[in-house]
Amino acid sequence: MIRLAMVGGGQGAFIGAVHRMAARLDGRAVLCAGALSSSPERAIQSARELGLPADRAYPSWQALISGELKRPAEERAQAIVIVTPNASHFEIAMSCVEAGFHVVCDKPMVVTDEQARTLVRAAAANGVVFGVTYNYAGYPMVRAARELISRGELGAIRRVAVEYHQGWLATRLESSGQKQASWRTDPSSAGAGGAVGDIGSHAENLVQYVTGLEVEELCADLKSFVDGRTLDDDASVLLRFVGGARGTLTCSQVCIGEENNLTLRVYGEKASISWRQENPNELLLCTADGSRQVLTRGCAAAGPLAAAATRLPPGHPEGFIEAFANVYRGVFDAIDAHAQGRPWSAGAGFAGAEDGARGVRFVNACVESSRRGGIWLPFEPRPGV
Amino acid sequence: MIRLAMVGGGQGAFIGAVHRMAARLDGRAVLCAGALSSSPERAIQSARELGLPADRAYPSWQALISGELKRPAEERAQAIVIVTPNASHFEIAMSCVEAGFHVVCDKPMVVTDEQARTLVRAAAANGVVFGVTYNYAGYPMVRAARELISRGELGAIRRVAVEYHQGWLATRLESSGQKQASWRTDPSSAGAGGAVGDIGSHAENLVQYVTGLEVEELCADLKSFVDGRTLDDDASVLLRFVGGARGTLTCSQVCIGEENNLTLRVYGEKASISWRQENPNELLLCTADGSRQVLTRGCAAAGPLAAAATRLPPGHPEGFIEAFANVYRGVFDAIDAHAQGRPWSAGAGFAGAEDGARGVRFVNACVESSRRGGIWLPFEPRPGV
Amino acid sequence: MIRLAMVGGGQGAFIGAVHRMAARLDGRAVLCAGALSSSPERAIQSARELGLPADRAYPSWQALISGELKRPAEERAQAIVIVTPNASHFEIAMSCVEAGFHVVCDKPMVVTDEQARTLVRAAAANGVVFGVTYNYAGYPMVRAARELISRGELGAIRRVAVEYHQGWLATRLESSGQKQASWRTDPSSAGAGGAVGDIGSHAENLVQYVTGLEVEELCADLKSFVDGRTLDDDASVLLRFVGGARGTLTCSQVCIGEENNLTLRVYGEKASISWRQENPNELLLCTADGSRQVLTRGCAAAGPLAAAATRLPPGHPEGFIEAFANVYRGVFDAIDAHAQGRPWSAGAGFAGAEDGARGVRFVNACVESSRRGGIWLPFEPRPGV
Amino acid sequence: MIRLAMVGGGQGAFIGAVHRMAARLDGRAVLCAGALSSSPERAIQSARELGLPADRAYPSWQALISGELKRPAEERAQAIVIVTPNASHFEIAMSCVEAGFHVVCDKPMVVTDEQARTLVRAAAANGVVFGVTYNYAGYPMVRAARELISRGELGAIRRVAVEYHQGWLATRLESSGQKQASWRTDPSSAGAGGAVGDIGSHAENLVQYVTGLEVEELCADLKSFVDGRTLDDDASVLLRFVGGARGTLTCSQVCIGEENNLTLRVYGEKASISWRQENPNELLLCTADGSRQVLTRGCAAAGPLAAAATRLPPGHPEGFIEAFANVYRGVFDAIDAHAQGRPWSAGAGFAGAEDGARGVRFVNACVESSRRGGIWLPFEPRPGV
Repeated sequence: MIRLAMVGGGQGAFIGAVHRMAARLDGRAVLCAGALSSSPERAIQSARELGLPADRAYPSWQALISGELKRPAEERAQAIVIVTPNASHFEIAMSCVEAGFHVVCDKPMVVTDEQARTLVRAAAANGVVFGVTYNYAGYPMVRAARELISRGELGAIRRVAVEYHQGWLATRLESSGQKQASWRTDPSSAGAGGAVGDIGSHAENLVQYVTGLEVEELCADLKSFVDGRTLDDDASVLLRFVGGARGTLTCSQVCIGEENNLTLRVYGEKASISWRQENPNELLLCTADGSRQVLTRGCAAAGPLAAAATRLPPGHPEGFIEAFANVYRGVFDAIDAHAQGRPWSAGAGFAGAEDGARGVRFVNACVESSRRGGIWLPFEPRPGV
Repeated sequence: MIRLAMVGGGQGAFIGAVHRMAARLDGRAVLCAGALSSSPERAIQSARELGLPADRAYPSWQALISGELKRPAEERAQAIVIVTPNASHFEIAMSCVEAGFHVVCDKPMVVTDEQARTLVRAAAANGVVFGVTYNYAGYPMVRAARELISRGELGAIRRVAVEYHQGWLATRLESSGQKQASWRTDPSSAGAGGAVGDIGSHAENLVQYVTGLEVEELCADLKSFVDGRTLDDDASVLLRFVGGARGTLTCSQVCIGEENNLTLRVYGEKASISWRQENPNELLLCTADGSRQVLTRGCAAAGPLAAAATRLPPGHPEGFIEAFANVYRGVFDAIDAHAQGRPWSAGAGFAGAEDGARGVRFVNACVESSRRGGIWLPFEPRPGV
Repeated sequence: MIRLAMVGGGQGAFIGAVHRMAARLDGRAVLCAGALSSSPERAIQSARELGLPADRAYPSWQALISGELKRPAEERAQAIVIVTPNASHFEIAMSCVEAGFHVVCDKPMVVTDEQARTLVRAAAANGVVFGVTYNYAGYPMVRAARELISRGELGAIRRVAVEYHQGWLATRLESSGQKQASWRTDPSSAGAGGAVGDIGSHAENLVQYVTGLEVEELCADLKSFVDGRTLDDDASVLLRFVGGARGTLTCSQVCIGEENNLTLRVYGEKASISWRQENPNELLLCTADGSRQVLTRGCAAAGPLAAAATRLPPGHPEGFIEAFANVYRGVFDAIDAHAQGRPWSAGAGFAGAEDGARGVRFVNACVESSRRGGIWLPFEPRPGV
Repeated sequence: MIRLAMVGGGQGAFIGAVHRMAARLDGRAVLCAGALSSSPERAIQSARELGLPADRAYPSWQALISGELKRPAEERAQAIVIVTPNASHFEIAMSCVEAGFHVVCDKPMVVTDEQARTLVRAAAANGVVFGVTYNYAGYPMVRAARELISRGELGAIRRVAVEYHQGWLATRLESSGQKQASWRTDPSSAGAGGAVGDIGSHAENLVQYVTGLEVEELCADLKSFVDGRTLDDDASVLLRFVGGARGTLTCSQVCIGEENNLTLRVYGEKASISWRQENPNELLLCTADGSRQVLTRGCAAAGPLAAAATRLPPGHPEGFIEAFANVYRGVFDAIDAHAQGRPWSAGAGFAGAEDGARGVRFVNACVESSRRGGIWLPFEPRPGV
């Protein structure tokens, strides 16, 4: 059993509970410690509710790191899960990495490009496993899509259409004190991107994960529709990829009626795929001869990468938690490999620090393009670090 | 019965037969004359196949106009349907209008903005009914959407997402001599726009018809993916509307797997709608309270504008031809009103010359924006003519 | 142009207008005479509204037959369309047939098995074309399904599931005087079957058309849910087919929320198909290797029988009227063949008198099975006539 | 943490792993012991693979019961999960119950009606919590449906249509040695029902759970399509409910193309619902005024019973494992209540022994009806025990 500690994710949080279910699903990990809130009282109280031992219910992430370091290696937390607001990720993650802990960090990884570069270097220098929970890449049919494309079944990609539409911020929910809304719309905790940081970042990652394409230039038009909101709640981005493919990425949190509509379509010279997160067990594959095939999770045609992320036979729906658990599965495999001295890497199994850094640059580039009137800006998918 | 003549639409044509079925469906019109091809032999032969009388099987549109003018008013064609390649529309339509015929013209109405202005003026000056067959606005549930929005049920519009994706030009079909592909990819017959002219124009019209929004600025990225093709076969356009709404319009004819996927979504402050041409009898209406309602054609909630465009009860699908016939119904109503000296206008029932002119300007503005690197250009939705 | 006369279908009728649109769609027929109501005044008035000449606006079907017989052959109606309530079909159809007119008769063809046998014999003896408008068999993708099965692509059929659910009779609509509801729920005009006669009959025909299977035994449970209603408004039928296949047929007109939900699924040893009338342009084909293919109307894989019933390319929806028009197309082809002395037959193109008779027997057998407590009864799909 | 032991579910099993994930998801239970196979060697080996301590890796269920009884109460397993083939359930469950363990038993609960009665009595007499994993009742939108109906929003129920179609046994898979197929098609391990026992039983439970209706009479037609198969692989059942509602239940495991298609539709006097297991996060609710509403998991309209079974917000799909975990959640709540001396009962939260017994009677009644030619048999939904 891999021993995990968690920073953030206590009372009132949403994603912390998801991380815990995902980490637990396969019975490979156990949560053994936590600093579950920035409020010491709430941190202790949240730990108690989760049944953590009192001596590992830490009042702060600093206490958690120092406390765990004092424990013998065989009971010390091996990996630290960071599920705090974006702006706090950098300091916590750097401290974890430098203390030799593996890290599972929620997205976006950090807030500035400079932080991103620094953290990528630190993770590499310390040799720890560093995962960023771009969880949508954990869906089996997303992995099937990646494999189809990497095998060349779509041919050269021409057009990518990705959208991520939600509606929960269509009104000024943050003024009601709702916690999720409050920090996501506050630049001091969320960073420079609103919708583009919160969900546009997922969309960017999904495109890159599935297609392997690199963005060469982008042109973004961000907007804040709700009165009094500082950050964008709606964004449209045109993409030009290395090699000539074109794309559109739209993300919005003011689309009434949309719940969590992340949809990806990729059109190539030979075939196309279409996938929708809200019905994730299907992947539509159309080929140039007019065939329209519905691939289902668990079917043979989904391929080995999807099969390795599948727990149930076709027709038995898997969902968000299972996809999230697949990202954890990738991280756990890497941690096991690390422990045994075997090679490991981010990539098909989970997003690593460089993926996280690319996501941060993407958010900031969109903000910059829009700030300058919606001009085209070059994008470096893999800058020298 | 309203008497129609047709220019174009003979052997090898696609849309001509659709016009004839649509015009015939309600039993209000009869095709009495035709100049069905630019080749005189094929024109005559096509007319014979359609059972037109020999003396009204004209070898050219010029002959048709002069021949019909010689007939007594009570048997003369009242309206002329123009279904030739785009570049020929202007000359034919001008001649028809100046000869006093009503006109039903396929889209895009003409090729240049100058032609568009001239034709708008001519149609107005001659007092004829002039319809442009933006047929997608004929679908009952599109009309239901228009009515919902005009009644204020969506509140102020924030985001519009329209796409029109086809795949039939994913290869260089025009090099096979296929007639539809050939003229649509040839600037001398199609005009400056490829996909953006052929189908982007429909998308623009649909947005305007449903939302009433006016485009203030646009930024377009056009691309020709198929080797050897001159005109764009793929386009992405960012839209900024008067009043602050934002939108994306994408159109492509190289999207393998897409047949005729015209989809419109409109998100407002109070509700949103979603409609898909390939399943046109449904309209999804979502409201801010979390309700997701599927409105079906023929149901009471679809409203009177939709009801007036509906022939069958719910559950009995109507399709493309019926929608097309609704545009004809609007034109016929206008012709009847014209004959009886009652007022008439384009708008809810059919697109008029000004709508056609706006469409032409839209196509040309997209081409110009893209040619200049994808810059933002102002757009005048209603220039002084 | 084929000359049609119509009996029934005047003011207040639903299906008459559909017949007229369907007959007109392809421009091959013209309505030249009518006895459009059982009320002479309404018959005359309805004919005037449709623009029929006054001397062919008949006050009764008897007058229509005698009047048309007096006309010269080259202007006399060739076929008579019967769209009256079921119980009147027999007398009218017999008179038409004996007078040498071709007949297009709405379903169910007649009311009793005896009538059915008599009419089959009369139609054959007089050598006229006799079509029964089982219009759902006119859908292109239904024809594609028939062809797939007749080619053996499904292998031996094992299970058939057909359902036809509507909700419009969920309340006692007939007590409001609504015309459609009134005659359909009145045994003196509808015959012995309520829902099973009105729509169950369509379901039976669809199964037979697509699969070619013959019912060997059936067990029916009919019910009248709405207080005061005499005829069934809901029926469940178990089917055993010759050769061992099993099936269920359910039909109901009290299913709130259902509009016109006719759905057919056929499972064979090698593959299965699924089709739904409310989204008729798709056919799902699943094969034993796990492939799930969506065949679309107009695609090459739909096969030649479907192609011959298709007017538009894929993605341009065709609907109920076009399917209905395909039945007329079949009848018109037969009438043309008849006129030219070429052989013709009912079958793939349209349902003939024997199909109509089988439908009548099916309705009556279901009523009889249910009346006797829901016992199994043998069914003769093709009795000697 | 509730301590669980498992009987069955070792190497080669399917459902055992599902039970373990479901039991673990919420972090409320831990697997502490197992007799995971009827083969002692495989039992030990499977326990080792799952990381169970060696002294609780039992070679047989008898050893498990006696071994656990020897442990102190505070570490002894509290509940025993039985996931062996059907025919072995009775003896194991009786022993568990008589030893005072709570039981979670897979369905069908036992094989004969006599066994069922005996077990119901034993569970009651020993006062233990007894759950039967009719897991489909764990889906939030199934619970929403139950609540809508119990609140009277559908009015009196008229028609129920439930189907459960799979295709995995379309060929003689059991002859390949595939373990799941082998025991399910063998009467000595499966009992008298094939498809009707394996999945028809789920369908029956789902109907009862959602509607509360009681079957009064049934008429079943079972068939074994695959050569050499003894038990039914396909069944059609007509249902008459107490109070007059009618229904059809079909289940089949030879439907090529179907994966795990359990679909329920319920039509009442005022509204109807439709739910499909393969897209379980939606529930269609149609009302008599023509409204068609898509309720989504997590939305307010889904009601409190669904909310209590929901872990994620709308648009974040939950699936099969989460639904299964909801059944465990109900059992765990009952075990906690039992431990604290609070009242508890089966019902909305999980199926109890009486539900299990009713399911057994249903399977056997279908087999009996079919054996006698498909006659109507009375059904006692709640016999005196």
